[in-house]
Amino acid sequence: MDKEAIAQIFRNIQDHICNELTKADGLGEFIEDRWERPGGGGGRSRVMRHGQVIEKGGVNFSAVHGRTPEKLLKNFGMDGENFFATGVSIVLHPENPMVPIIHMNIRYFEMSNGTYWFGGGIDLTPHYIDTDDSRYFHAKLKAICDKHDSSYYPEFKHWADDYFFIRHRQETRGIGGIFFDHLSENEDRSKENILEFVKDVGLSFAPIYCYYMNKNARLPYGQRQKEWQMLRRGRYVEFNLVYDRGTKFGLETNGRVESILMSLPAEAGWEYDYHPPKGSKEAQTLAMLKKGINWV
Amino acid sequence: MDKEAIAQIFRNIQDHICNELTKADGLGEFIEDRWERPGGGGGRSRVMRHGQVIEKGGVNFSAVHGRTPEKLLKNFGMDGENFFATGVSIVLHPENPMVPIIHMNIRYFEMSNGTYWFGGGIDLTPHYIDTDDSRYFHAKLKAICDKHDSSYYPEFKHWADDYFFIRHRQETRGIGGIFFDHLSENEDRSKENILEFVKDVGLSFAPIYCYYMNKNARLPYGQRQKEWQMLRRGRYVEFNLVYDRGTKFGLETNGRVESILMSLPAEAGWEYDYHPPKGSKEAQTLAMLKKGINWV
Repeated sequence: MDKEAIAQIFRNIQDHICNELTKADGLGEFIEDRWERPGGGGGRSRVMRHGQVIEKGGVNFSAVHGRTPEKLLKNFGMDGENFFATGVSIVLHPENPMVPIIHMNIRYFEMSNGTYWFGGGIDLTPHYIDTDDSRYFHAKLKAICDKHDSSYYPEFKHWADDYFFIRHRQETRGIGGIFFDHLSENEDRSKENILEFVKDVGLSFAPIYCYYMNKNARLPYGQRQKEWQMLRRGRYVEFNLVYDRGTKFGLETNGRVESILMSLPAEAGWEYDYHPPKGSKEAQTLAMLKKGINWV
Repeated sequence: MDKEAIAQIFRNIQDHICNELTKADGLGEFIEDRWERPGGGGGRSRVMRHGQVIEKGGVNFSAVHGRTPEKLLKNFGMDGENFFATGVSIVLHPENPMVPIIHMNIRYFEMSNGTYWFGGGIDLTPHYIDTDDSRYFHAKLKAICDKHDSSYYPEFKHWADDYFFIRHRQETRGIGGIFFDHLSENEDRSKENILEFVKDVGLSFAPIYCYYMNKNARLPYGQRQKEWQMLRRGRYVEFNLVYDRGTKFGLETNGRVESILMSLPAEAGWEYDYHPPKGSKEAQTLAMLKKGINWV
């Protein structure tokens, strides 16, 4: 399975996701921006703004290549290599605070010396955590993982808890999901096996998110829920700008800024030392933003 | 001049600034939060919210001490030292987009081996850059600097241009100002000389900002200006979370999160790949967000 074939599979996944989201939204459309990377390759950034359900969202594909950034070579103790990287990256911010924020990423990386790996993840950030909705999300992810390897879900769920964590707040970003990186073949799995798993993750995105769009986008909300949504989005911005590896790496290596920062919401807010009233739905959500919750 | 005396001077500067800003605002009041640092010392965080002019602003004082964080010792090739640090930090976000965002910081750092230094800075981030307003700001800073050392303004202005720079956007945060760090005595100046300079910077803050509050807070604006303000605030958030050394250091060393992040606006916004119309006031502002402009 060569790198161009993998890029093509990822392109198809981007198309599939955009089609499904457009249908489920019923109003918004994705605007595509094709861009080229000065060092080699390029991408298709697709952004939806002012949809019926999706206030601001991006579904990006890229396939870039060139000389491997020094920073990365140092991390792996290599030098002089060329790289190829392709992936699909998504963040969707809904209008209605009852619909969760979602993120998904699948990626493939290859060096000219033959080293390669897959990575990815999908995590959900409900503004208000609902136990049934959370269980649904994790059950879906577990089913996808279990189809490929029964060790995947527990391992990748744990990894997501650790990764999607806002250390300075001692809060998880949301209810987690799965996160994996540096997956390559070993005695238990071939490159094709991993690609099948990564494809399944990518193809699971649309049905999972459309479920929440259809179920929650008509739920009523008011000023209070909007204000809370702004604060939760503020936390999302903090995570992405302070911790997210893809964002940091992209900004440090002169990646395409607009594609990297498409993850940021149309609006976000901050209040000094805000504590929701005891026993409120907001306080209940905060209490569940911690690692190690077993949702399934 | 011992460290406690310097902390007391800084406390007085915080009081002075809060009094002057409260008078100029005419509606908002500072709410004080006294806090203690588990490792030693503490602070007085003061936040104004929903003022007539100031939508959200913080004027913080702190004086902390304890074992020097490892990270800092490594940077300076030292170990096992105790530290003392005191400072005043301010960020003000106005309601009216015609009033600029402002930041000021003065700080003193001392190690148990006798090493000490002063640092600080003040920079202005107009949502709309006005040439006269910018000249006024830099002329005031130049006058304060020149009173102490004619090399200060050119050197510290240059430093501010470099420091308050959003690298991934290739934009300065605003029109700059002055920035200085690691100032200690040498053949040209005593510790007292530096303290006098730092005091003058601190005492210049209120008259400078009140000038803009009085002059610009009643200027008319509409939806378009508010939306542009949100985008400019988005950039401010990017600078603070991605580059600001104080913020990064504070978050990495378990500083008091709410005091560190009081710099973030009540609301901020992001649009994918936004370009203001050619020839618009917004485009004119963008064109002036670059290093090396000589305002005086």
